[in-house]
Amino acid sequence: MIRISIDAMGGDHGPGVVVPALAQVAVRRPDIRFIVYGREEAVRPELAKFPALQEKSEFFHCDVAVKMDDKPSQALRHGRWKSSMWKAIEAVKAETADACVSAGNTGALMAMSKFCLRTMASIDRPAIAAIWPTLRGESVVLDVGATIGADAQQLIDFAILGTGMARSVFGIERPTVGLLNVGVEEIKGQEEVKEAGRMLREADMASMTYHGFVEGDDIGKGTVDVVVTEGFSGNIALKTAEGTARQIAGYLRAAMGRTLMARIGYLFARSAFNTLREKMDVSRANGGVFLGLNGIVVKSHGGADSEGFAAAVELAYDMARNRLFDRIEADLDLFHARNPQSQLTRKPAVADDGEDR
Amino acid sequence: MIRISIDAMGGDHGPGVVVPALAQVAVRRPDIRFIVYGREEAVRPELAKFPALQEKSEFFHCDVAVKMDDKPSQALRHGRWKSSMWKAIEAVKAETADACVSAGNTGALMAMSKFCLRTMASIDRPAIAAIWPTLRGESVVLDVGATIGADAQQLIDFAILGTGMARSVFGIERPTVGLLNVGVEEIKGQEEVKEAGRMLREADMASMTYHGFVEGDDIGKGTVDVVVTEGFSGNIALKTAEGTARQIAGYLRAAMGRTLMARIGYLFARSAFNTLREKMDVSRANGGVFLGLNGIVVKSHGGADSEGFAAAVELAYDMARNRLFDRIEADLDLFHARNPQSQLTRKPAVADDGEDR
Repeated sequence: MIRISIDAMGGDHGPGVVVPALAQVAVRRPDIRFIVYGREEAVRPELAKFPALQEKSEFFHCDVAVKMDDKPSQALRHGRWKSSMWKAIEAVKAETADACVSAGNTGALMAMSKFCLRTMASIDRPAIAAIWPTLRGESVVLDVGATIGADAQQLIDFAILGTGMARSVFGIERPTVGLLNVGVEEIKGQEEVKEAGRMLREADMASMTYHGFVEGDDIGKGTVDVVVTEGFSGNIALKTAEGTARQIAGYLRAAMGRTLMARIGYLFARSAFNTLREKMDVSRANGGVFLGLNGIVVKSHGGADSEGFAAAVELAYDMARNRLFDRIEADLDLFHARNPQSQLTRKPAVADDGEDR
Repeated sequence: MIRISIDAMGGDHGPGVVVPALAQVAVRRPDIRFIVYGREEAVRPELAKFPALQEKSEFFHCDVAVKMDDKPSQALRHGRWKSSMWKAIEAVKAETADACVSAGNTGALMAMSKFCLRTMASIDRPAIAAIWPTLRGESVVLDVGATIGADAQQLIDFAILGTGMARSVFGIERPTVGLLNVGVEEIKGQEEVKEAGRMLREADMASMTYHGFVEGDDIGKGTVDVVVTEGFSGNIALKTAEGTARQIAGYLRAAMGRTLMARIGYLFARSAFNTLREKMDVSRANGGVFLGLNGIVVKSHGGADSEGFAAAVELAYDMARNRLFDRIEADLDLFHARNPQSQLTRKPAVADDGEDR
């Protein structure tokens, strides 16, 4: 049995989307159980529509719901201890849940997750990992925006975290790992990236195959299973890819509507276009995963429909079922046992008050 | 009359692609003149095929051709003073040419351009600017990989350089300018980016409208005419967009070939697909432009065909005709006259020996 705690108030649509998603997942993953947090008057009527789901769910009322536009500091001030978002995270800390899912706002969810769960003992900073559709399938890309900048040791932490995720989500025994870098010859990359590359090559870890540097266009090609970068460039890569996909969808719509022949062609090829649209929709690869905390937290896209939220819940289920957290802990222990000096290169830890830079 | 110096030996195809491109441009821009550098036995036979072009061209033999895989340091060692690439750049310095175009390797071209032309008096570092196709038309994005990292003053330099380019290439009197940043709420962006934002807002320059921060997905939307960022994230954004476009083209090919109905649809819609393919091809927006040097150097894509190289030459022509260099110089003077303290925030200049970090 896998138990998932749910913030039912998150996202643009709240319980009206979240609860039907849980009902779908309950059919597809029979051994799942839910602990649902939210406002009674909003969630109860939705739950009442799905008797089979109700049997697999516990519901707890929370007075406070974190708003989608709350700043992290506001969310912490008003929502700590009592909001549905906080309670869902806290269930993971209390080990009444194996993982937590929320479609609430990313900044608030990260601030609360850090405050409540704290980072793992040998990890400085959490990362947000995205599942990125590629020509070869899917890859894990991290960090896509938890923090800005990373030293070599933090990049290695991200590599270990992402490797654990690729192993438990894709079922790859020894994922390939690349460090995102620029390929222009005369500039030789950031010092941290180069140092991380040297360290990864020397560490020669059993859990991963270190591939070397990759460039921006390698992400979509699926050159490696895990792409590691710091949060600024990772966020810009993710948003740029989303923007490019939308841009091309716009061109496609315009091109297909322009002439009668093209419109006829569109009618013939409609189902092919629908397949294409699904593949192009980067946000379908839903669920940013917060890694490096003492527990698994999955962030669903705020605008996700029930199918999208269900995908995020299933991702949380798969990671819990495949013992992602234990794998990561074991890999970190192994790395630090073999490379005792690696901690020495680390910068002093920053106080983790949820008000991160 | 506009005079363009040409490195005929650059690119994957050399004179066989470069010379026919010049012949095309000579028809479309009647007042253009070429100074062509390259190996006699490779270039002369090509030139002989286009008598009208020959009348508008001077040719100079050079013993050395920089190779596409030469490292910048190798290229400088073997190609300085005598290669076709060097000679083409030198013609700009000697003012016998108004701009230079090469399809040679980016690192070598940048190293030689810096060594030969030097950076402008009030500029620390050159930038590579790309013309990025957007849903609204085209935008200038810089730096896409000349150097890694930038302080606030350097980002402002890039904003002034990019504005000059948008004015002279797109003919926009007062382009909008955005600083690339991440939008995740709890992280508040790089300090340099925030400081550059404050300074741009306060400077309130007549040549540009400062829009504020933009995110990765704003580039493709065309939210602003000029997107400013440092070279690491700019290069990753550019490569990621190229990769995404190729990835979607791959999906499209696969989707269109999968069923008979889709194949019939493709036949009907073929011309629409061709239009789409052109728009998706980021590399058609050919010609990275080196800005911030004492002269205009345009880098054509190494794999460009004649049409692509011709586009790069026309870009160089347009910038020279619209007096890009003088505009930038005037804008820089104006900014520094009004903001005399701005130089104080600058880090000490690094010795510019072409052996960049």
